[in-house]
Amino acid sequence: MRVAVLGGDGYCGWATALYLSKQGHSVAIVDNFIRRQWDHELGVQTLTPIRTLAERLRVWQELTGKSLELFVGDVTDYDFLSSCIESYGPDAVVHFAEQRAAPYSMIDRKHAVFTQVNNVVGTLNLLYALREFQPDCHLVKLGTMGEYGTPNIDIEEGYITIEHNGRKDVLPYPKQGGSFYHLSKVHDSHNIMFCCKIWGLRATDLNQGVVYGTLTEEVALDEALINRFDYDEVFGTVLNRYCVEAAVGMPLSVYGKGGQTRGFLNIRDTLQCVELALVNPPQAGEYRVFNQFTETFNVLQLAEMVKAQSEKLGFKVEINHLKNPRVEAEQHYYNPIHRKLSDLGLQPRLLSDELVQSMVKRVRDHAARVKRDIILPRVRWEGSKPPGGSER
Amino acid sequence: MRVAVLGGDGYCGWATALYLSKQGHSVAIVDNFIRRQWDHELGVQTLTPIRTLAERLRVWQELTGKSLELFVGDVTDYDFLSSCIESYGPDAVVHFAEQRAAPYSMIDRKHAVFTQVNNVVGTLNLLYALREFQPDCHLVKLGTMGEYGTPNIDIEEGYITIEHNGRKDVLPYPKQGGSFYHLSKVHDSHNIMFCCKIWGLRATDLNQGVVYGTLTEEVALDEALINRFDYDEVFGTVLNRYCVEAAVGMPLSVYGKGGQTRGFLNIRDTLQCVELALVNPPQAGEYRVFNQFTETFNVLQLAEMVKAQSEKLGFKVEINHLKNPRVEAEQHYYNPIHRKLSDLGLQPRLLSDELVQSMVKRVRDHAARVKRDIILPRVRWEGSKPPGGSER
Repeated sequence: MRVAVLGGDGYCGWATALYLSKQGHSVAIVDNFIRRQWDHELGVQTLTPIRTLAERLRVWQELTGKSLELFVGDVTDYDFLSSCIESYGPDAVVHFAEQRAAPYSMIDRKHAVFTQVNNVVGTLNLLYALREFQPDCHLVKLGTMGEYGTPNIDIEEGYITIEHNGRKDVLPYPKQGGSFYHLSKVHDSHNIMFCCKIWGLRATDLNQGVVYGTLTEEVALDEALINRFDYDEVFGTVLNRYCVEAAVGMPLSVYGKGGQTRGFLNIRDTLQCVELALVNPPQAGEYRVFNQFTETFNVLQLAEMVKAQSEKLGFKVEINHLKNPRVEAEQHYYNPIHRKLSDLGLQPRLLSDELVQSMVKRVRDHAARVKRDIILPRVRWEGSKPPGGSER
Repeated sequence: MRVAVLGGDGYCGWATALYLSKQGHSVAIVDNFIRRQWDHELGVQTLTPIRTLAERLRVWQELTGKSLELFVGDVTDYDFLSSCIESYGPDAVVHFAEQRAAPYSMIDRKHAVFTQVNNVVGTLNLLYALREFQPDCHLVKLGTMGEYGTPNIDIEEGYITIEHNGRKDVLPYPKQGGSFYHLSKVHDSHNIMFCCKIWGLRATDLNQGVVYGTLTEEVALDEALINRFDYDEVFGTVLNRYCVEAAVGMPLSVYGKGGQTRGFLNIRDTLQCVELALVNPPQAGEYRVFNQFTETFNVLQLAEMVKAQSEKLGFKVEINHLKNPRVEAEQHYYNPIHRKLSDLGLQPRLLSDELVQSMVKRVRDHAARVKRDIILPRVRWEGSKPPGGSER
């Protein structure tokens, strides 16, 4: 299968590109390296010293004999994107090429507008490019579980059957995104659904939970293939942040009460899920949604887990409840369904004590690179002073 | 009350600005005249010869002694918009300043992207400007009934109580916009709801039906105050189009079977509805939705009504079913609730035989200005050749 991975230099994108290459697919990466620029903007860096993409691809080819095609450019530039689609002719496109951090979108107006325009226009361009040059291509789009918010009823996979005043319909599941970033994916979902309907495109929206872990079989082959590990307040996700805090002797930073419950998955399961979607494509005209996570935790449970495992490694760990920088429910019902990927054969790798320990050890190995001043939240949903040098 | 009318040079905006001025409110118009530019782009024009805004405002002041403030600029320019909000200090903003034609958004990729970016960014800017300079200001935002699509259950006003697996929640009503334009308003709705939640803004989303009529008491005062009457395939709405076709001897152009049912209202009721929202503002932090229309018709019923009334005036009228340029259900259930504005005191002026006759007569008066080649649909949802000189 010919697969274009948009955003293939990023955290999920890089792991996915290598995995698909290893599986024998022909893979092209489309990226403009803006994720690396955001690190410069915010004055942050990945814990792991990642190499340039050129170096990564060179080493991958040396080790495996497999070469990936590379298209450098911006998906919001239609001439560029459509020429990639036309010349590469993918059977499937996996679209990771969006600004993916909720706090980044909440820095100020400019970052909110940038996030929504960048994400919505990139996806609109892709929809038009597929219609024009590759109408049978399967679009695998990365959505987020955060599109649903935290309703007081079970969360279904994209659609819900509603009985109302004696009638019934299957309708898009109501969306309540909790940041301008999450809302950008809500907008994408509505746009993609519409294009499948009017143009007969086929798409899978992977409403992914929070991804953790960095090691996949492929990136473990060589230090030059190492993946990102973000722990800063903007791009770092909660489990990474806790592991770094534990390893460098900072209290674990639980936002508010800590009852915020989310879906999580190992990055190795991200790869499995993407592949399961690819090899089981939807019909022409079908827009389907998979809830992509393997288990739920609240953020206090995760802190307790990291504390317990870090203490086994000899670290002394405290848990600190900070004023929540986000506006979100801190205690809520949360029961999202996630059956469709299991039905296709997903074998989850659940979060284990061993994995938490290995993450903390990994931080210890790179402890000299930890910047302690980029971890605690400064971006606030109610209004914030921007980190780095950014301005409204 | 100090009211800023964004898009106050357009069809609904102009009538609203004058009406609110007449009621004794202090009114400012914010507009960049892009609606007039779109006429040039598409090679179309309003049936009625509208004057420049400068001339309109001069005559209004002569006739009534009331002057409106004018801010000329683009709401997607934050420096401009925020300076308007800061200097004018409105108690309420009525936001009409969006690209409002579904076919315009479906011309091609550029028009789709323009519509979504223009509408979403304008509204995001407004939300940020209100938060920064006028956080108690009431945002009255023009949405559209088209955000809901045509579900097989009753359409509630913005929210629906869903019982599911033994639990219950009140959630945003599922959205199924039927064009990139309608989807832009879906995106706006999600963004506004979020900002009310996190910043305590107050907003009313008026999900308006199709507006007809041009004469309001205020614009009828003088020929110089005349309002737009659009009948072209892109900006013309269905009733206007039929009236023009009847008056110039063209068959009435029903798209497909004609069972497409929509909510409609007289422009005089638009004014009433906006005022009812203004004088009954929501609480801080509240995002409420009113379904703003007075009755429903399907497009074949309207054609039959126009045919019957035109024949009374001596016109010979045929009804023609065209291949539908849109992708939409042509027979469907449609029962949208519209109680909230009635509860506030809306006295509807329903579509009467007399009004249809007066519209047809009005066209007859301006028949020399009718351009017959701009009426039939060229923009197609499945892909179209662009009208005018536009390109992808």
